[in-house]
Parts: sequence; C-alpha cells; structure tokens
Amino acid sequence: LPEDVSESSFGRLLQGAVVDESNGKVLVVQDRNKTKNAWKFPGGLSDPGENIGATAVREVFEETGVRSEFKSLLSIRQQHDHPGAFAMSDMYIICRLRPLSYDIDFCTQECLRCEWLELAELARTDRTTPITSRVARLLLRGLERGFGEIDLVMEELPAVYSGVFYQLYLRPLKG
Amino acid sequence: LPEDVSESSFGRLLQGAVVDESNGKVLVVQDRNKTKNAWKFPGGLSDPGENIGATAVREVFEETGVRSEFKSLLSIRQQHDHPGAFAMSDMYIICRLRPLSYDIDFCTQECLRCEWLELAELARTDRTTPITSRVARLLLRGLERGFGEIDLVMEELPAVYSGVFYQLYLRPLKG
Repeated sequence: LPEDVSESSFGRLLQGAVVDESNGKVLVVQDRNKTKNAWKFPGGLSDPGENIGATAVREVFEETGVRSEFKSLLSIRQQHDHPGAFAMSDMYIICRLRPLSYDIDFCTQECLRCEWLELAELARTDRTTPITSRVARLLLRGLERGFGEIDLVMEELPAVYSGVFYQLYLRPLKG
Repeated sequence: LPEDVSESSFGRLLQGAVVDESNGKVLVVQDRNKTKNAWKFPGGLSDPGENIGATAVREVFEETGVRSEFKSLLSIRQQHDHPGAFAMSDMYIICRLRPLSYDIDFCTQECLRCEWLELAELARTDRTTPITSRVARLLLRGLERGFGEIDLVMEELPAVYSGVFYQLYLRPLKG
C-alpha cells in the first residue's frame, strides 16, 4: 500500500435523501467549508463493517438531528482520477430514507444551513450539484409514479459456502 | 491499517452478465476450485482507478474469451462479517453486458466449464448461487418487458469543484 493512504480513505461515502412523502419535501444541507453554497444531501463515511443503510441513517442523524429509516439504494457514483484516491476510496452511494422525526438540530461545525426543501425546487435550482439535481428529479418521479420505479431494494441472503449473511441490492423481482 | 490487509483486498469485485437478446442466453462459468459446481457469472477484481464497466468487460474476456460492451449496472452486494474483510473489500457489483463475440475460449486455470445457458434455465436450476438465481430472474423480466425496468444507466458528469469527471449510475430519468 502507498504510505499516504490513511484508514479513512477506505470508507464508503454514503448520503441519505430523507423524503417526506406527505408534503414532497427533502432534507438538504449546505457545507460550512465550501466556496459555493450548494444544497446537497447529508451524509458521511461508513465505519468498517457497517451496513450501507446504517451509515446513511447514522450520518444523517449526526449532521441534522433528524431520525430516519432506510428504504432503498438510489444511485452509485464512481470518481474518475480523483486526486489522492486509491482503489475503493472513490465509491459514493445515495440512499432513500423515510423520516421518523422532523425537527432539525444541525451540526454547526459541519453545516451552514439545513432545511426541508421542496423536491420540485431542488430539482430546478442552480444552487445544487449535478448529482443532487438528478437524484431530486428521480425522487420527484418516485413521488408521482411510485418509488417502485426507482428503488433498488435490499434482500438479506446467506452465502452458499460460508453461511454468513450478505445484503443484496437490486430492482424488486416483482414489478 | 491492520498488517494482514493486502492491496488486492481493496479491489472491487465485478461480475458481468453477458446477455444475448437474440436467443435469451447468458454466459456462465463454473469455478475450478469449488466443492460445489454452481453456475455463476464470470468476473474478477478491478484494478485501482479502473471503471466498473471496464473491469467487467476485461474480466469476462480474460475468463471466457467472449468480447462484450457495458450496458448497465444491475446489483450491488455488501458482505456482512466477511472473514478477513476490511472496509471496502466487501463490495461486489453485477453489470449487464451485451456480447460482441460469441465463441467461448475459457481460462482452464480458473474455470471447469463455461457455456451460453438459457436464462430461463439459470433462473430455475439449483446448481447456482442465490444471487445468480435472482439476477437471472431479473434479467428474464428485462428480456420480457424491456431492460429499462431493471437497469441503472451510467452518466458521465463533471465534478463541481475539481472539474474532473465521474460516473453516476442511477435509474433512467426518462421512464
């Protein structure tokens, strides 16, 4: 391994899009230490061995104070030629979460702002990132036509040889 | 980092389901060094910095001699409590590929058998793994009702701050 690779480089970056289906709003933050104030979904790095959904729920809570539950996997990003990236450090996953609480108590060290924003507004604003904008459009489609069209759902299965369990994310087999 | 973590532990495991839409067949292999002879999709580990689709296409060619092109991402697996796994070593991605050649010339060091198998047969046989069986059922649905129902397609986008490009995989925005 290169000497400059730190343990944290191997974490998976997870973001959680917490969608309130009752009013079409989604939880978004603006990072404190960025030059451009773009809305994005809250998130952070997984701990070793932590499940995708568990990371997203934990990071959203730590950053915003909102409790939620995992619903599905929506998107995966792979960075090309990321400066300093090594092997797996360049994966980045966005999940759909369902809110269990609504009051915001955001981390002022990480965030400048945190709001429940209309999905329709997030889908059309310039004050966001290309990936957030696309996922907002996808979530709008989910609101209108059902999340069954956009979700990768989780199934837990035993491995054939070892007997340990794994999580498989794929489109629902019944559609 | 733990001392027993080798560089190869950080590779992403990619498998390619090469589907021939003209006859409903898919390319499958049986590993040479397994006690149970289960059909599975060919694949292997990504090189550092290598794209998901490029790894799948390369590994399928090296293992089976069949040339193909990347079409979509189908499924992601996360292993829970994998013995010896550390952080990112436990991700495993299945892609859908389209064949560009059909003659099999398989690697006899890696594989015991390699065949074009009916997807319908792979979906119902016991001589496969749970994940392969599920993906076969998903691919059958794609053959019958269009792959637009099951695919995560790739979009290449510039990063906001750095200007480098990344690959985003998500459900098609037009459905």
